[in-house]
Amino acid sequence: MMKKLMAEGLGTFWLVFGGCGSAIYAAGVPDVGIGYAGVALAFGLTVLTMAYAVGHISGGHFNPAVTLGLVVAGRHPAKELPVYWGAQVVGAILAGAALYVIASGMTGFAGTGGFASNGYGELSPQGYSLLAALVIEIILTAGFLFIILGSTSKGAPAGFAPIAIGLGLTLIHLISIPVTNTSVNPARSTGVALFAETAALGQLWLFWGAPLVGAVIGGVLWKLVSTTED
Amino acid sequence: MMKKLMAEGLGTFWLVFGGCGSAIYAAGVPDVGIGYAGVALAFGLTVLTMAYAVGHISGGHFNPAVTLGLVVAGRHPAKELPVYWGAQVVGAILAGAALYVIASGMTGFAGTGGFASNGYGELSPQGYSLLAALVIEIILTAGFLFIILGSTSKGAPAGFAPIAIGLGLTLIHLISIPVTNTSVNPARSTGVALFAETAALGQLWLFWGAPLVGAVIGGVLWKLVSTTED
Amino acid sequence: MMKKLMAEGLGTFWLVFGGCGSAIYAAGVPDVGIGYAGVALAFGLTVLTMAYAVGHISGGHFNPAVTLGLVVAGRHPAKELPVYWGAQVVGAILAGAALYVIASGMTGFAGTGGFASNGYGELSPQGYSLLAALVIEIILTAGFLFIILGSTSKGAPAGFAPIAIGLGLTLIHLISIPVTNTSVNPARSTGVALFAETAALGQLWLFWGAPLVGAVIGGVLWKLVSTTED
Amino acid sequence: MMKKLMAEGLGTFWLVFGGCGSAIYAAGVPDVGIGYAGVALAFGLTVLTMAYAVGHISGGHFNPAVTLGLVVAGRHPAKELPVYWGAQVVGAILAGAALYVIASGMTGFAGTGGFASNGYGELSPQGYSLLAALVIEIILTAGFLFIILGSTSKGAPAGFAPIAIGLGLTLIHLISIPVTNTSVNPARSTGVALFAETAALGQLWLFWGAPLVGAVIGGVLWKLVSTTED
Repeated sequence: MMKKLMAEGLGTFWLVFGGCGSAIYAAGVPDVGIGYAGVALAFGLTVLTMAYAVGHISGGHFNPAVTLGLVVAGRHPAKELPVYWGAQVVGAILAGAALYVIASGMTGFAGTGGFASNGYGELSPQGYSLLAALVIEIILTAGFLFIILGSTSKGAPAGFAPIAIGLGLTLIHLISIPVTNTSVNPARSTGVALFAETAALGQLWLFWGAPLVGAVIGGVLWKLVSTTED
Repeated sequence: MMKKLMAEGLGTFWLVFGGCGSAIYAAGVPDVGIGYAGVALAFGLTVLTMAYAVGHISGGHFNPAVTLGLVVAGRHPAKELPVYWGAQVVGAILAGAALYVIASGMTGFAGTGGFASNGYGELSPQGYSLLAALVIEIILTAGFLFIILGSTSKGAPAGFAPIAIGLGLTLIHLISIPVTNTSVNPARSTGVALFAETAALGQLWLFWGAPLVGAVIGGVLWKLVSTTED
Repeated sequence: MMKKLMAEGLGTFWLVFGGCGSAIYAAGVPDVGIGYAGVALAFGLTVLTMAYAVGHISGGHFNPAVTLGLVVAGRHPAKELPVYWGAQVVGAILAGAALYVIASGMTGFAGTGGFASNGYGELSPQGYSLLAALVIEIILTAGFLFIILGSTSKGAPAGFAPIAIGLGLTLIHLISIPVTNTSVNPARSTGVALFAETAALGQLWLFWGAPLVGAVIGGVLWKLVSTTED
Repeated sequence: MMKKLMAEGLGTFWLVFGGCGSAIYAAGVPDVGIGYAGVALAFGLTVLTMAYAVGHISGGHFNPAVTLGLVVAGRHPAKELPVYWGAQVVGAILAGAALYVIASGMTGFAGTGGFASNGYGELSPQGYSLLAALVIEIILTAGFLFIILGSTSKGAPAGFAPIAIGLGLTLIHLISIPVTNTSVNPARSTGVALFAETAALGQLWLFWGAPLVGAVIGGVLWKLVSTTED
């Protein structure tokens, strides 16, 4: 179990360090910056790479909503959920701290600002409402779980799931960065909200609630569609 | 059959929600927007991800033209075509509705505009004629079906088809977004045309006609080239 | 043999239509255009998709330099080289014609300009000399053949070669579009040079010569490095 | 052994020629340039392509830090480390020379400038401190080795490692080009520093030291997490 938790912690560290790091350091550089598309690619590749590296050890969730959805679908033991969530949140917070150390080493560093945190209303990148944020986070997390459950099912070709899941997370970011800065992952939201100068912590409830609700919906939808017992 | 239709409906929902959603919310954001290339990637990844998730359940068409092309090539039973088309169109329209709910939650929302619908002439993103639209939609849908039939044939390596097909759709968008906003999929065109403020509905005939013609051509071309009985 | 030649012709059509089409229609659209990176992705995906579709039929060359390199390395029968070259060039020219039909349907069409043709000196996108063009085309074609021969050898994992080869072509374009607009493929250069308004035809010799020399070098390098008899 | 060293030399040549070449020639072209995201993709694809081509011959390291990390984790014989390092550095320097020949053929060539070299402080692309550079290079190289060791372990699906590793290098560049121009590879740093007009050579110690330290950490972390004996 300790190896599983280390794998989840390191994987979630990598997800937040890589995804939020690319957003903080590289997205907005004038002319040559990577933009939202580059950040979307980075988030997806954190999961693709770590799922190939440690998927066979811990399952490669790196996300409390994923663990919940797998439990709902009967794919992961419920009793492991609390410690998985703990390892994921710890990994995410350590990543936030590492990002802060590096960011503060930039010439003219003037504070963390939003620090790639998630938000709605005034904290939405393009000013989307709470309702819009709620709807899109639920839909996208449901879709994410559906892809995870489908691509790792016995009917799907073996070995390709990390590609489907990682690039699925890229897709999700391509759609929703302007709306909520894209969470679908409560650990990711928590890891950077702690370091943001904005009121991101006060909105964190939505980025736990909506992904968890979406994950349950995704798990149920998969059970309705699946033609095999897995 | 009900599970197949649910898979097709959910998959087409995902295609329209993800592809058109990325276009509506994220393509045109100043400086960091994802542009046409990001939209192209998003469309492709909707198919890549859902083909891995439910390809083994329904075949993973998510597109009336694809279903027709597979029937023409003898790969899918003709009698299932009407219900597949129905499930695909319903999924696409539900996605259009969900996109509308979220879009209307943006600060300063002033109407849907084109809403990522397809068009020619005055509704072409860069002002291409009806003839140009017709030609490019036919060629690209033919190519799309050819890739689908080839990569899922017995001679091709197993398991890789969703990558070839999904990234094939990305390629198709990289070429033709400026011309027609890229359809090659009548359900996708229908799902958002219903919500557009422009005259997109009046041009919808072309985005049913051209992809269906192209799909038949693609199916026939494949039968001419194929060296195996599948 | 006829099926092989049809596969090569259609595949080369797809390569030129998709790669050059994305360059002509989509690269330079203000603000949301796909740029050189999108064109690079498009070229690579034409090969990735068609190699999965017809690689088991014709080998999936779509490029006279590739056919030559495979002959040099003893992987393809020399006697088929002339007809393969013929099919490739015919497919490329047909693609050029199709691209012209669509381009001329754009509002305000004022001529083809460079039409995504290759060039050096005054016709180099960023003004690189004949020598620079020669060196980079030779090096990149040699690398391309080396990747093709290595990834399709018995020692490499089966099924992945189209990914390595297609994305290898993307890589090649990411490097060299500014220098020569990237050829490494004499058929691709020929197919659009015929429709260009510039003096591209007069420079076509280099985009046959350099890729063919590079392909021979790549074939020889592979034979030196390879540890298996294939 | 000679074939292994040729494979490492050619692979490292390709990595530096492709990654740094895309940065030098294509990143900063106005309007249509590939930007940091395109460079990130190019670096990753050099490794993805060459790992499929020669991974079965030499292991496909192309990076002194990778060779060290594999030795630490007991995956590669320690006695081969010096000659691997030699082949990698020679390949990288030859690539730097080839890049120089081509660059000097550009109209208005006025010197190499930074020539895609790595740096901190005044030589950091966005002005990050020595400490920030040190921290990010160590973390990212550790993550890189962790992915390499995990994705090539017996528990991971066979054949996919070049995708995970290559796209892992893309991810690493998406995060850190603004900070250090991204090294995680001492040979890459050396190959272009020799041709830079800046003081890059004087900072080269960090881009040997930090990746090597990170590689050892990555190797140790993997041994702690791994559940199989490989």
